[in-house]
Amino acid sequence: MTTTLLSDIGLLVTNEPALGAGPTGELTDAALLIADGTVAWSGAAVDAASAIAELGLGPLSAVQRLSAGGACVIPGFVDSHSHLVFGGDRAAEFEARMGGRTYEAGGIRSTVAATRAASDEELRARLAGFIAELHAQGTTTVEIKSGYGLSVEAEERLVRLAAEVTDEVTFLGAHVVPAEYASRENGADEYVELVTGEMLAACAPHAKWVDVFCETGAFTVAQSRRVLQAGIAAGLAPRVHASQLGPGDGVRLAVELGAASVDHCTYLSDEDVAALAASSTVATLLPGVEFSTRQPYPSGRRLIDAGVTVAIACDTNPGSSFTSSMPFCIAVAVRDMGMTPAEALWAATAGGAAALRRTDVGRLSAGARADLVQLRTPSYVHLAYRPGVPLVERVWKDGVRVA
Amino acid sequence: MTTTLLSDIGLLVTNEPALGAGPTGELTDAALLIADGTVAWSGAAVDAASAIAELGLGPLSAVQRLSAGGACVIPGFVDSHSHLVFGGDRAAEFEARMGGRTYEAGGIRSTVAATRAASDEELRARLAGFIAELHAQGTTTVEIKSGYGLSVEAEERLVRLAAEVTDEVTFLGAHVVPAEYASRENGADEYVELVTGEMLAACAPHAKWVDVFCETGAFTVAQSRRVLQAGIAAGLAPRVHASQLGPGDGVRLAVELGAASVDHCTYLSDEDVAALAASSTVATLLPGVEFSTRQPYPSGRRLIDAGVTVAIACDTNPGSSFTSSMPFCIAVAVRDMGMTPAEALWAATAGGAAALRRTDVGRLSAGARADLVQLRTPSYVHLAYRPGVPLVERVWKDGVRVA
Ligand SMILES: [Zn+2]
Ligand SMILES: [Zn+2]
Repeated sequence: MTTTLLSDIGLLVTNEPALGAGPTGELTDAALLIADGTVAWSGAAVDAASAIAELGLGPLSAVQRLSAGGACVIPGFVDSHSHLVFGGDRAAEFEARMGGRTYEAGGIRSTVAATRAASDEELRARLAGFIAELHAQGTTTVEIKSGYGLSVEAEERLVRLAAEVTDEVTFLGAHVVPAEYASRENGADEYVELVTGEMLAACAPHAKWVDVFCETGAFTVAQSRRVLQAGIAAGLAPRVHASQLGPGDGVRLAVELGAASVDHCTYLSDEDVAALAASSTVATLLPGVEFSTRQPYPSGRRLIDAGVTVAIACDTNPGSSFTSSMPFCIAVAVRDMGMTPAEALWAATAGGAAALRRTDVGRLSAGARADLVQLRTPSYVHLAYRPGVPLVERVWKDGVRVA
Repeated sequence: MTTTLLSDIGLLVTNEPALGAGPTGELTDAALLIADGTVAWSGAAVDAASAIAELGLGPLSAVQRLSAGGACVIPGFVDSHSHLVFGGDRAAEFEARMGGRTYEAGGIRSTVAATRAASDEELRARLAGFIAELHAQGTTTVEIKSGYGLSVEAEERLVRLAAEVTDEVTFLGAHVVPAEYASRENGADEYVELVTGEMLAACAPHAKWVDVFCETGAFTVAQSRRVLQAGIAAGLAPRVHASQLGPGDGVRLAVELGAASVDHCTYLSDEDVAALAASSTVATLLPGVEFSTRQPYPSGRRLIDAGVTVAIACDTNPGSSFTSSMPFCIAVAVRDMGMTPAEALWAATAGGAAALRRTDVGRLSAGARADLVQLRTPSYVHLAYRPGVPLVERVWKDGVRVA
């Protein structure tokens, strides 16, 4: 077992208030010890030698030393919302939308067709490319949803492929009512029957989460409740897409069922905000969606001021948000959602971890996974201050360099 | 002399309407020949062999072959507006501004102090870092302004250092009235006297352009005219910062003096737009500025519809826009300035070239410099469709790989 000492950290974000300043637990002139894939210790650089001795990590001479060169080190980003298993893309639909034109051949169903047509190997290659892209941008934990299969076999395939690259797999059979059901009377209810029956049974073994798109045009609150309760009965934990396109009761459903997270939250009533604040449900904001659809941005400020736990995620998908850049989402959250750089960074790391009910990621203190990012800059403020610029220098996941 | 054939280009943007579709001159299944640092030929892949023979570029076997793997290839970005020679940064000021707080120690003058305090070697190292950062993001031509010196010696040093890394050097002694003049009665006029006299004489040998910040709080139209006319008399060509913070007469001054470009253009009257449309002055939009200051975005749509030539640039500077990412600026121009992906790409390449009165860059046809970018994607639409994601795969400048 190699022990690595990352030293010369100009600014270390631990997200442990007990270790450093503010909610982000910030330390200057810091160091961090990696042993066996986890953080063995983090603290002031001057205390590193005694920490190594106390932890019995062997002689100081056996410790591999790396310098961060005075740069800022942060926890790896925890991207708690993505749809990475799909075929094709929808660049033409995006181009049409930006030009104010409608595009008939688009929508989720066009991606469903492309995904069904893709081979396992094509989807695996695509996924591997996305994972490399995420690592290069500092993301070390990613949740991946199904939802572009919409048949028993197709959804089972997607959760199975997702499970090959992440532990955070979400069954989202209730993404949209597929074309073959949408045309029938009671088609949506019949599809919910399938989702909560045979499809759930096929998918649950590969998944940790159940999710539903609770929105006008997708699934009603009653249908969403059926999906989530069936998922819970099958051993999955709930999370919800709600209030993306307009106000609704999805947020309160999520809170009522103890969902880990309710995502989008673009249109919230005061009652929604109060319900979230009184709950352990995280509100996950998806800045890439509003950026890429020209929707109005929700206010992160309003949520934080009310005491709601906020996460930021990319929602990477070929329709409404094809970014996979957590730094980009942080920059937009700071500009357009009223969040400070520290709040946005917390939301993209510890907030994402809370949205996945994880305590082993999103922080850099003893016992956490050694998932960390060395930036090219002296501060994480630069993630918003230098939007679009690649600022990730080195990335470790489970103590291993992945970028 | 090596000849290189870049083949398997899924989509080639030449910016030559005679070579391909639309104002961006787009070709599918294309190829491009690089010889002696320039583009020897570009066209349909099937015509490559006969082009090599006709051009007398030697036997086909002697040609080095590279595959673009079906990806999109575009001209290198021409970033026609930057302020890259400076010391320090203003992250704390940015953080305060985003939090709605004022920050007393900020402003251009704080960067002037940090720049004056930096050694030549510090500024050179910083510049080299920025050039590498630009290359990695696909920028192959960059204009660099002075303006953080504001004394004869300090401005001379900045244009001299800038000239070490680019041919496009702009003397911007009239960036702001320095503190030592601002406090005096008639201090601004006295400073203009210095700028147009001794400072211009010291800087002109290193520069191609003269620029002025024509704005309330900086220089009046009368002062700006004096600066520009003195620069013209010294052999420099004019460009202007105007209408960033409010409406004014700077745009019409730029047109009147035949400026190559007037930059910012955030607040334009109908008369300004008409004057630009009737001129050869380019309107350069700087999306990073509005993004980073939460100012309203100007409409690229309005300018293009009126027949104005539009460029997009980063305005990289530590105060109002610290991005150096042309892809990021393209994404914002598409979302918030009403430009199509094709218009934004044109503005960031051919538009930038027009703003620098260059015909050898910003296009990929015979005779142009071999400054080109291979993307990781099948189309340039992805620059806006996948905001923040690093999509630049390979970059050539003068036929040499720089990223
Ligand atoms: Zn989603
Ligand atoms: Zn400027």
